[in-house]
Amino acid sequence: MLVIITYDVNTQTAAGRKRLRKVAKQCVNYGQRVQNSVFECQLDATKYRQIKANLEDIIDKEADSLRFYNLGDKYKNKVEHIGVKPSFDVTDTLII
Amino acid sequence: MLVIITYDVNTQTAAGRKRLRKVAKQCVNYGQRVQNSVFECQLDATKYRQIKANLEDIIDKEADSLRFYNLGDKYKNKVEHIGVKPSFDVTDTLII
Repeated sequence: MLVIITYDVNTQTAAGRKRLRKVAKQCVNYGQRVQNSVFECQLDATKYRQIKANLEDIIDKEADSLRFYNLGDKYKNKVEHIGVKPSFDVTDTLII
Repeated sequence: MLVIITYDVNTQTAAGRKRLRKVAKQCVNYGQRVQNSVFECQLDATKYRQIKANLEDIIDKEADSLRFYNLGDKYKNKVEHIGVKPSFDVTDTLII
């Protein structure tokens, strides 16, 4: 299934910026970055549980937000894109 | 249907920051902000076409990115959230 992962990590502190880098690196292990804070991940149920647990361990639940959208297996006609295509360096901490 | 709209607007220029504000304001007319650059919108086919057209007119397609994920009508079990709940001011230009 295709799972869209979106996140807001509060980067007002150094600890927050570290969490942001960790979240991004974790997501890269499971899918493709399509926007700065949006990943598209092809997951089975096991991997879906894994990444949720991993991200939950990283974030500060009082400051950060994670959302997961499960588009299922037939997602081809459910995704549309307009504009520039992504070209991201996951180690980049700059948020635009 | 529930449509997730995510965007990256390049805010390196004043024009970009203006586009970002316009995109956010447009999205607010159609749905609920759940993260800084993520909106969830309850749309029929007509409104879905409208917002796509409106946003396409605002963004710079060489610099900005829009993505639309259509979760259909039965989306209740397809959305998961972890962490802090959103509380956004759409007029706020700060991107965290």
